[in-house]
Amino acid sequence: MFKTRFTDMFGVAAPITCGGMTRVGKVELIAAVANAGALGFITAHTAGRPEDLAKAVNRCRDLTDKPFGVNLTILPSITPIPYDEYREAIIESGVHIVETAGNNPQPHLPRFKEAGVKVIHKCTSVRHAVKAQSIGVDCVSIDGFECAGHPGEDDVGGLILFPATADKISIPIIASGGIADARGLVAALALGCDGANMGTRFMATVEAPIHENVKKQIVANDERSTNLIFRTLHNTARVAKNEISDEVVAIETRGNATFADVKDLVAGTRGAIVLDEGEMDAGIWSAGQTQALIHDIPTCAELVSRIVREAEEIIRGRLGAMAVV
Amino acid sequence: MFKTRFTDMFGVAAPITCGGMTRVGKVELIAAVANAGALGFITAHTAGRPEDLAKAVNRCRDLTDKPFGVNLTILPSITPIPYDEYREAIIESGVHIVETAGNNPQPHLPRFKEAGVKVIHKCTSVRHAVKAQSIGVDCVSIDGFECAGHPGEDDVGGLILFPATADKISIPIIASGGIADARGLVAALALGCDGANMGTRFMATVEAPIHENVKKQIVANDERSTNLIFRTLHNTARVAKNEISDEVVAIETRGNATFADVKDLVAGTRGAIVLDEGEMDAGIWSAGQTQALIHDIPTCAELVSRIVREAEEIIRGRLGAMAVV
Repeated sequence: MFKTRFTDMFGVAAPITCGGMTRVGKVELIAAVANAGALGFITAHTAGRPEDLAKAVNRCRDLTDKPFGVNLTILPSITPIPYDEYREAIIESGVHIVETAGNNPQPHLPRFKEAGVKVIHKCTSVRHAVKAQSIGVDCVSIDGFECAGHPGEDDVGGLILFPATADKISIPIIASGGIADARGLVAALALGCDGANMGTRFMATVEAPIHENVKKQIVANDERSTNLIFRTLHNTARVAKNEISDEVVAIETRGNATFADVKDLVAGTRGAIVLDEGEMDAGIWSAGQTQALIHDIPTCAELVSRIVREAEEIIRGRLGAMAVV
Repeated sequence: MFKTRFTDMFGVAAPITCGGMTRVGKVELIAAVANAGALGFITAHTAGRPEDLAKAVNRCRDLTDKPFGVNLTILPSITPIPYDEYREAIIESGVHIVETAGNNPQPHLPRFKEAGVKVIHKCTSVRHAVKAQSIGVDCVSIDGFECAGHPGEDDVGGLILFPATADKISIPIIASGGIADARGLVAALALGCDGANMGTRFMATVEAPIHENVKKQIVANDERSTNLIFRTLHNTARVAKNEISDEVVAIETRGNATFADVKDLVAGTRGAIVLDEGEMDAGIWSAGQTQALIHDIPTCAELVSRIVREAEEIIRGRLGAMAVV
């Protein structure tokens, strides 16, 4: 069993999160993560409209009596997105933990605080973590260069980003990116964090609502099986390496890529950025460098209990034996 | 006190190295590192010709009775470099630990083995670490994306590279890149390594033979104060960010850089890649992302004893309290 500022704040047994993942953070996975003793997040936009999100929360509550949260990613959009309605749906559905990502969550903080909702803000830089603390979020999830999805443009590895963040803020910190097993969890705790996010790792679980071929490919992949795309658009995303993401990189390397070029290419692959179709080589899906460390497809319960048990062994066994009194 | 496969193999008290650094790995620093209980490496090429290296080893031995090593970096060169003579100088001078880097050290291994010299080979990828073990080196130093100098072209963070390497080889592993304090050392040990290299950290010590302004700049810099240069030449180097390295990046970003262009620019800055001149902004010097974690200029003895003490506290205190029995 673990006791950190993270487990205390959120009332979960394991200092592990399954942070918001577009098209992956659905009820069946998040309930399984909760029942395993970790903290998962239903992804609001993937759930659908605000009323669909409320229904998803209720369905999740039918499946678990343990804490879970909702991810609310705030992005600029041509079509206005009803963020206030999502926020109110979260509050009304009785969820007490929200993970915000993307833009500054400040406009939503007073209502969340009033309703007793704890807010975790996802950042990719020390300066944004400092800003997040200053506006009053309860916890920061800090995403390093190794992560799946959007690592930002600074390219700072977690080995540096985690302790550098811990040096600058006093609220609990979730280390994110580069962590998929007990070794990484203990490293994150040693580096000054209070818990660890393991997105790609939870994609390769029995309960993850993605195609079996994607899970198998994650297991087959290694530390070099990712590409950074949209780099030239200053909207970098780390995705699984395959023919399509290689082609996006090639377009960008030629130096004259526009957003339209890259979007057209991706859109031309039978359904844009896909996670849930059989022919996954036809699509682009987020995956972190942790693919190197993922060798099986366990249930969430098996995964979390294994990580916790092995982390205890590393601390009391391996490290304890190395630090000779 | 620490006891790992690294400390056992090399007979040192702390699982910490000051690996070979061009223009920095000189006798005064390496003797101070040895006296502090860590393992430093005199850089052969910086010492001069093979006979100068032998003299440097003798001077170092006058300054310490603790173990130290020699770094032998093997690179293709237009002017032939007498590697065999360096190797024999190392053996004849009685040094028992060598760090090889660059090309495959295989041609030199039989003589080193015969003479009882332990060989640590520096790699930047899992596949090269596997190869190094297969040819019979005693230990691997694995360098992640965050490191100063040459991180290779794979861009894999230490959080992944260290455990992925530990999964594939059975000889002792030194984690390198991204580590500058006790937190990083414990993380490296948790991730499956047996010790940690801290190059940039040792540059900011009293005994490092570099200009005070460089040391102060390392302290002032943060996690974003590096540039990756020579990327277009497939010979990437992580260096301190300044006007000159920014200009190299700008040339390369324009996409038409040749080796000559970049070399000319660097050569035009009053003395090529410099570490030892007053106006350091005029030059380019290697530095890792760990600059974010370096806040002082201690002696080597102060540094090593602090890291060891704090690492013990993290293991027995912080982590021990988190892993509730």
